[in-house]
Amino acid sequence: MSRERKRFRLALLIIGVESTLMEKPYLRQISKPLLKNPIFVQGLPGFGNVGKIAVYLMTKFCGAKPFVQLYSPSFPDYVSVSSKGICRLPRYEFYSANTEKNDFIIMTGDTQPSFDDVLAHYELCGETLDFVQKQGCSFIITLGGVPLREEKAQVYVAATSPRLALEFMEKGAVIYSKGRIVGATGLTLGLAKERGLEGICLLGPTTGFRADRGAGFSVFKFLMKALGNEVKEGL
Amino acid sequence: MSRERKRFRLALLIIGVESTLMEKPYLRQISKPLLKNPIFVQGLPGFGNVGKIAVYLMTKFCGAKPFVQLYSPSFPDYVSVSSKGICRLPRYEFYSANTEKNDFIIMTGDTQPSFDDVLAHYELCGETLDFVQKQGCSFIITLGGVPLREEKAQVYVAATSPRLALEFMEKGAVIYSKGRIVGATGLTLGLAKERGLEGICLLGPTTGFRADRGAGFSVFKFLMKALGNEVKEGL
Amino acid sequence: MSRERKRFRLALLIIGVESTLMEKPYLRQISKPLLKNPIFVQGLPGFGNVGKIAVYLMTKFCGAKPFVQLYSPSFPDYVSVSSKGICRLPRYEFYSANTEKNDFIIMTGDTQPSFDDVLAHYELCGETLDFVQKQGCSFIITLGGVPLREEKAQVYVAATSPRLALEFMEKGAVIYSKGRIVGATGLTLGLAKERGLEGICLLGPTTGFRADRGAGFSVFKFLMKALGNEVKEGL
Amino acid sequence: MSRERKRFRLALLIIGVESTLMEKPYLRQISKPLLKNPIFVQGLPGFGNVGKIAVYLMTKFCGAKPFVQLYSPSFPDYVSVSSKGICRLPRYEFYSANTEKNDFIIMTGDTQPSFDDVLAHYELCGETLDFVQKQGCSFIITLGGVPLREEKAQVYVAATSPRLALEFMEKGAVIYSKGRIVGATGLTLGLAKERGLEGICLLGPTTGFRADRGAGFSVFKFLMKALGNEVKEGL
Repeated sequence: MSRERKRFRLALLIIGVESTLMEKPYLRQISKPLLKNPIFVQGLPGFGNVGKIAVYLMTKFCGAKPFVQLYSPSFPDYVSVSSKGICRLPRYEFYSANTEKNDFIIMTGDTQPSFDDVLAHYELCGETLDFVQKQGCSFIITLGGVPLREEKAQVYVAATSPRLALEFMEKGAVIYSKGRIVGATGLTLGLAKERGLEGICLLGPTTGFRADRGAGFSVFKFLMKALGNEVKEGL
Repeated sequence: MSRERKRFRLALLIIGVESTLMEKPYLRQISKPLLKNPIFVQGLPGFGNVGKIAVYLMTKFCGAKPFVQLYSPSFPDYVSVSSKGICRLPRYEFYSANTEKNDFIIMTGDTQPSFDDVLAHYELCGETLDFVQKQGCSFIITLGGVPLREEKAQVYVAATSPRLALEFMEKGAVIYSKGRIVGATGLTLGLAKERGLEGICLLGPTTGFRADRGAGFSVFKFLMKALGNEVKEGL
Repeated sequence: MSRERKRFRLALLIIGVESTLMEKPYLRQISKPLLKNPIFVQGLPGFGNVGKIAVYLMTKFCGAKPFVQLYSPSFPDYVSVSSKGICRLPRYEFYSANTEKNDFIIMTGDTQPSFDDVLAHYELCGETLDFVQKQGCSFIITLGGVPLREEKAQVYVAATSPRLALEFMEKGAVIYSKGRIVGATGLTLGLAKERGLEGICLLGPTTGFRADRGAGFSVFKFLMKALGNEVKEGL
Repeated sequence: MSRERKRFRLALLIIGVESTLMEKPYLRQISKPLLKNPIFVQGLPGFGNVGKIAVYLMTKFCGAKPFVQLYSPSFPDYVSVSSKGICRLPRYEFYSANTEKNDFIIMTGDTQPSFDDVLAHYELCGETLDFVQKQGCSFIITLGGVPLREEKAQVYVAATSPRLALEFMEKGAVIYSKGRIVGATGLTLGLAKERGLEGICLLGPTTGFRADRGAGFSVFKFLMKALGNEVKEGL
C-alpha cells in the first residue's frame, strides 16, 4: 500500500495534480489589491507584543484590509475558537493599505513557530520575503520589542546600511547597538539584506512581561511620523 | 557505497520499485467495506482519554469493524506486546460501521506523535483527511477532552461554521469559546475547514489526571443522540 | 552562488555523480562473506547494555568477523578516539559467522540516535532490515535488557507470532507480557513483522544502572542453546 | 494557491531558476584567492572558545583575508548588530592566507547549530569539506578546547592515522586518548577521514567557563611552530 501510495503521489506530481497535504507553508489569496512599490511592515507576537500592537494600530490608522493568509505546518497544532464557537487554524495575515504618502503591505500573525525550530523560522521569513518581493516591495520594516527597562520611551533602530541607520537616527530613533535582534524581527531583515533589499528594524523597549501597549504605540507613532504621516494623540 | 545505494534507489524509483523503508505514514488495508457518504469520527489518546473512550464505546455500540491501519515513523519507537508475547508497532485504526441512520468511519489509535513534533501532527491529520475524503467523507467529527473542573456533565461544541455550532447547541451542547483546542482534536477540524469540509468538535470536561470513563460516556451518548441513535443507560 | 550550487548538484545527479555529503545513513562494505540463509542477531547499547554484551560474547563464541559498517548523520556529532589518538566516527557494525548449525549476521554499535529523534530510529531500523534482507535473512533476533529487579536470571521472549513465542517458551524463556519494548530492540522486530519476516526478542532483566555482564551472559547462553550451540560456563 | 506555488517552483527548477528561499547552507564568494594545496584550519565557538581564539590569532599572524561566507538555515534565528546599528545574519567565514611555508584556508564562525540538531552538524561539516576539497585541500586541522583542569599548558593531538599522531607527538603534543571529541572539532575530522583525507585535531585544556585566551594562544603557537612558523611571545 505504501508503494502504491508513493507511486500514486509521483504520478499525480507528474501530471500536475498534487496531494492536499500541507507539507509546506502556503498562501491563500483573498483579494488582489492594487499596490505600487509598497513598503512592507511586519509585526509578529514577541517581547511585550510590541511589534504586533504597533502593526495593529497601523492597520487601523491606514484602513488596511487583509488580502492574503499564510498557513504553515510549523505553526503550533491547535485551532483558535471564536466566541461563537467557530474554529480556524493559526496563520499570518497580510493587509494592504493605500495612503497618500505610500502603499503598504502590513503583516501580522497569531503565533510563531516553536522557538527551537530554527529551520521553520528561516523558511517562513523566506516565504514572506518571496511573497512581498513578488508584490513589488523593496523596502522592509520590521517592528518589535526589546527587553530593556528605560524611563524615556525611546525607539531604537537597526538597518541594512549605514545610510539608513543615519537617516532614521536623524528622525529621532536611537541606534541599536546591543548585539543581537532575535526571532523574526531580526531574521526577516537579515535575510532581506542577503537578497539585496534595504530596510530597518524599529524596536520599542519593554519589560516584556505583559502586552505593552505604550511601547507598541510609541513604535507605531514614530514610524508613521518618519514616513510623513503625523499621528494625533487621540487615536 | 553511499553513491551506489543512492543511484540504486533512484533507479528503483524510475522503474517503479521502491525501498521498503518507512519514511512516511502509510496505510495497510485489511478489507474494503461498502460505505455510503460516511461520517468520520476521530477519538485519539489525550486529556482524560475522553476521545478514545468515546470512540471505543461507539465502535462497540455500532458493531464497527477495523478495515485500515495507519503506521507512521513519527510514532514513538516501541512495540506493544500482548499478554501472549506477540509484538506489534503502534498505529491508528480505522473502523467501518453501517447503522440504520448513517455509515461511519471511526478512527482511534494507540498513541500520538511527540507533542513537540508539530510537522508530524500536521502530516498525520492531513493523511487522515486525505484517506477519509477518498472514502467519500465530507463531514468530520472529532472527540476529545478539555481540562475543566465542572459539576454538571456538559458537552462542549466548536464547529467549522456558525450554522453547525447553532445546530449542535440546539441539540444540547454548550458553545466552546475558551480560546483554543490543542492537538489532533483541534487540528483535524481546522485542516478539514481549510479543505472546504464541514464538521464539529465535541469536548467533554475532565480533570485529565486519569482515564475519564464518565466524560467519555457523556460525549459518546451525546453524539449518538444528536445523530438519531438513542443510547440506553444499561450499555 | 546558492543557485549555481544547487544546479551543480542537480547536474551531478543527472549524470550519475553525487555529492560526498552524508545526508542519509550509508553502508561501507569491508568484505563479502558467503552466507546461506543467515539468522540476523542485533544487540545495541541500551538498558544495562545487555544486548550489546550478549552480542559481543556471541561474536567471540562464533569467531564472527566485521564485514559492513553503517554510518548515519543521526548519530551523535562526536568522534571516538583510540588509546593511540586515532579518531573515527560512531557507527554500527555487521559481523558474519558460519557455525555448524547456522550462518549469522550479528550487528552491534557504538551508539544510537538521540532518544527523541524517532524518525531516525525508524530510518536506521529500516536500513538495517533492508540490508539483512538483501543478504538473505528472514529470521530476526533482537537482544536487549529490560528494567526489572529479579532474583532468578530469567530470559524473557516476545515474538512476531504465537507459534514462535511458544517455541521459545518451551526452550526455557518466559513470555514477556509487560506492555512495551522500547527502542531499537522492539522497533526492529515490529518493523520486521510489518515486512512479513519472523523473529523474536530476548530480554534479560537488569537494574540498568550499569553494564550488566551477568544479564548479557544469560541472554547469550540462552540464545546459543536454543539454536543448538551449548555454551560451557568456562567461556 | 499551494498547488500553483509548488508547480511554479517545479517549473522554475526545470528551467534552471530557483526560489530565493534559503533551505540549505549556501556559500557567498567574495573573492577568488590563488591557493596551492592549501591546508585547512578550522576553529569554531566551543569550550572556552579555544578554537575560535586560536584561529583568530592565526588570521592576524598570517595576514589572512576573508573570501567566502557560509550561511545556513540551521544557524540561530537572530541577526547581530554592529556598533553602528548595521545588522547581518550569523555565518561562517573562510579566510585565505599565503605564507612562505604554506597556503591556508582558515575557517571560523559566529555560532554553531543548536547542540541537539545533529543532522545540521553533519550537514555543515560536510558542506565545509566539500568546499575545501574543491579548493584543493587534502590536509585538515581542527582546533578546539577540551574541558580539563591542568597546571601545565599542554596541547593534545588526535589524528586520522597513527603516523600523524606520532609526528605531532614528536613535535611536542600529547596523544589525546580520553575517549571522545564532541562537536564540529571532532566531526569534521571524522568525516574527513571517511573521505580518505588526512588531518589532526589540536585541543587546548580549559575550564571552559569563559573565553580562554591563554589556551587559545597555546594551541595557535604550537600549530604555527609545528608547521615551521616560529611565533614570538610579543605578538
